Amino acid sequence: MKKENMAMLCDFYEFTMSNGYFKNGFYKKNVYFDVFFRKVPDNGGFAIMAGLEQAIEYIRELHFEDEDIEYLKSKGIFDEQFLEYLRNFKFSGDVYAIPEGTPIFPNEPVMTIKAPAIEAQLVETFLLLTINHQTLIATKANRIVRAAQGRAVLEFGSRRAQGANAAVDGARAAYIGGCKGTACTLTDELYGVPAGGTMAHSWVQMFNSEYDAFKTYCEMYPDNPTLLVDTYNTLKSGVPNAIKVFKEVLLPQGKTKCAIRLDSGDISYLSKKARKMLDDAGLTECTITASNALDEYLIRDLMMQGAQVDTFGVGERLITSSSSPVFGGVYKLVAVENDGGEIVPKIKVSENTTKITNPHFKKVYRYFDKDSGKAIADELCIYDEVVDDSKPRTIFDPNAVWKTKMLDNYTAKELLVPIFKNGKCVYESPSIEEIATYCREQIDLLWDEVKRFENPHNYYVDLSKKLYDIKALLLNIYEK
Amino acid sequence: MKKENMAMLCDFYEFTMSNGYFKNGFYKKNVYFDVFFRKVPDNGGFAIMAGLEQAIEYIRELHFEDEDIEYLKSKGIFDEQFLEYLRNFKFSGDVYAIPEGTPIFPNEPVMTIKAPAIEAQLVETFLLLTINHQTLIATKANRIVRAAQGRAVLEFGSRRAQGANAAVDGARAAYIGGCKGTACTLTDELYGVPAGGTMAHSWVQMFNSEYDAFKTYCEMYPDNPTLLVDTYNTLKSGVPNAIKVFKEVLLPQGKTKCAIRLDSGDISYLSKKARKMLDDAGLTECTITASNALDEYLIRDLMMQGAQVDTFGVGERLITSSSSPVFGGVYKLVAVENDGGEIVPKIKVSENTTKITNPHFKKVYRYFDKDSGKAIADELCIYDEVVDDSKPRTIFDPNAVWKTKMLDNYTAKELLVPIFKNGKCVYESPSIEEIATYCREQIDLLWDEVKRFENPHNYYVDLSKKLYDIKALLLNIYEK
Repeated sequence: MKKENMAMLCDFYEFTMSNGYFKNGFYKKNVYFDVFFRKVPDNGGFAIMAGLEQAIEYIRELHFEDEDIEYLKSKGIFDEQFLEYLRNFKFSGDVYAIPEGTPIFPNEPVMTIKAPAIEAQLVETFLLLTINHQTLIATKANRIVRAAQGRAVLEFGSRRAQGANAAVDGARAAYIGGCKGTACTLTDELYGVPAGGTMAHSWVQMFNSEYDAFKTYCEMYPDNPTLLVDTYNTLKSGVPNAIKVFKEVLLPQGKTKCAIRLDSGDISYLSKKARKMLDDAGLTECTITASNALDEYLIRDLMMQGAQVDTFGVGERLITSSSSPVFGGVYKLVAVENDGGEIVPKIKVSENTTKITNPHFKKVYRYFDKDSGKAIADELCIYDEVVDDSKPRTIFDPNAVWKTKMLDNYTAKELLVPIFKNGKCVYESPSIEEIATYCREQIDLLWDEVKRFENPHNYYVDLSKKLYDIKALLLNIYEK
Repeated sequence: MKKENMAMLCDFYEFTMSNGYFKNGFYKKNVYFDVFFRKVPDNGGFAIMAGLEQAIEYIRELHFEDEDIEYLKSKGIFDEQFLEYLRNFKFSGDVYAIPEGTPIFPNEPVMTIKAPAIEAQLVETFLLLTINHQTLIATKANRIVRAAQGRAVLEFGSRRAQGANAAVDGARAAYIGGCKGTACTLTDELYGVPAGGTMAHSWVQMFNSEYDAFKTYCEMYPDNPTLLVDTYNTLKSGVPNAIKVFKEVLLPQGKTKCAIRLDSGDISYLSKKARKMLDDAGLTECTITASNALDEYLIRDLMMQGAQVDTFGVGERLITSSSSPVFGGVYKLVAVENDGGEIVPKIKVSENTTKITNPHFKKVYRYFDKDSGKAIADELCIYDEVVDDSKPRTIFDPNAVWKTKMLDNYTAKELLVPIFKNGKCVYESPSIEEIATYCREQIDLLWDEVKRFENPHNYYVDLSKKLYDIKALLLNIYEK
């Protein structure tokens, strides 16, 4: 795709609406939109925020080029002055977001945009797609990493990704979620996610024999080579040839680090047999990598069966989150400023009550128990509410208001941080390494019950009394 | 992603292998790789080839920049001369492919690359990901379009796509598969797929009333406006307000074309009620668009229930092919040239017999019945075999060799066409419109039994006697 600037990656209705806002004088009117989601993929207990760095880059570079204006003009429905306005378009608003790597929960804003109506509208599609995509993959990767219980997980899925960005940004998100590396070279070059890889079956086929292929490879790359052992027959040919070559090429050089990779067949059975063959040959430091349509469910089963796998290479099921390939983040208007500069909350009602939005410009607090350090609940508050965590605070479930909880030994952390102020970026993205570390630490602060794969405990996302009352009031108005 | 040239979107092992080929003199050795797949997504009967235009663009622009070479150098494992070679890298091989929009079947080559080993290896990841992605979406879109039985289907999924390319190229593929348009503006600007769209809920919320929002919109866009009627209450407020505005604004101008859109609630029930309200008001030309997590299964059900929907807007379930989000195209070595220039077939065996490859540099013929015009079978032949369709031909099922079929009233069409010759592109991509038309025509040539959603008839992909014998011979060698 020959485009660096993604301004036109935008649903067409953003332009028809913006043209209307322009004509009707709304373009100076500040509005507030929240990005939030309603359901965790795979019925999990939490998602992992990701994609913010790409969202920032997008907003920074946002502008329309002559060819874009010409294209829009050719549609014959846009006002000349509106097109002139787009020619000088720049994002001038504020953005707040939850930092990448943070566990996030349904119905809380993970990003809030405050901007003049047209600006806030035109960024909708791209912001959603970036956050939706990377959050999906980081969340899936983390499930797989947790299933592997400390064994390394590598991302191998580029060839099955849904397009170039899905491969490259997906590998970035997978690293945030806990993968130790990727096969995608470009993700390393662009983002510093360590890329690695050794050989495909074609390497083995290219030589006159598997033994020659392995030997040539080990002579070239004697530092921790991984040999793919399933091109012909894993146990009869692949593993014996690997053992022979490791002994002939590596051991004389005093090198003991090496690995084999299994890419087909029954991983549990083959890995145990291969482990024994390697150990019997004295190659106890040789590790075993397995790849082949793995995901958290298969890895959990393999672990239970005692599979002798040290590293899991995970491809298509991670890079597409195949068992749950959609992250349903939405972008909803929550407030508008009236002519006096007052913030007027807005609500979107729905016949489906779970689709009713939380109105107003909001803050998100996360409360941690001081003794255990664990996260207790999140609370959505109005933008001007301040929580003093030196004082007790009673929170309640908005869907069952009689369920209250008194907090008296807790710390409060605001989750939404300023990213843009008046169009200027005020946030510096941490390194990918730092994000991954932060993610691991934050997930450690969740109770195990929230991390269950099936039927996890519902983490509390409560509304402050003030917000709850405003929501009730707005609902009442629409009920009439 | 700040990269136009996708040379580095490449699994790292392609570089380790290529470095090895370079050192071992294989870089001048011509090899043959096939792209093929083993299973149709959603257990369907056929897939639709797509993504070739992007594959061509990729190969044309393929080169390594200084920063890429520097990055590779920093890994400390690549030969200085190999890096020098990459600096001047250009694809010099031949490519054959089945044109976009063609129905394709498991186990037949949809693309064949003949090139020196390193070149053929380095293009693997990107070619697979592009063909896999777009073929997946074109195939899914076509299922949805067929379910809609002639009602228009529009692609609305950008915000839920797995990254920017998934949105933009996905909408292109959806158009090939039969969608009539997209919401993605950039797909229109880049590829000419008609983009459209009118309003989101935020437009309605931005005004003091739904009526004001609708009125303003129709005054601005009186030519066939679509009003979103479910922001507050579809039947009590949305549809009545739409009717009022259509009558007040459009009819006086002599305009009768208009539409409403339903985006929540029970589409079947609401569309029937809305249809009656519109008809009762004399707005018989007002059409109804429905969107909300639709796919082929839901649309089929809605059609059965007599839902009064004229246009389906399909989002996340199309753009991610959510019920089957992976297209498993693979890239396998099928032949190498020996020093005398002779083509030596190669096979990849597997404990799983369905994973055994079809060796050799091949042709694909599709046979059509002269009377009905319908496609009868495909046959894979050796590159130098020529089928004369003026003579009878007996084909047989390679998995059940006793099942033979004699063709005597047929035409033979070669499916793989030359795309690159000696690194030069010799193929001109048709327009997206032409591809979509061609796709529709080719699908009309398939028997209905092949198009069933569940349990479709297995279309025959046979091997010529000559190819079958070579495969048997190679298998025999490895069995020893």
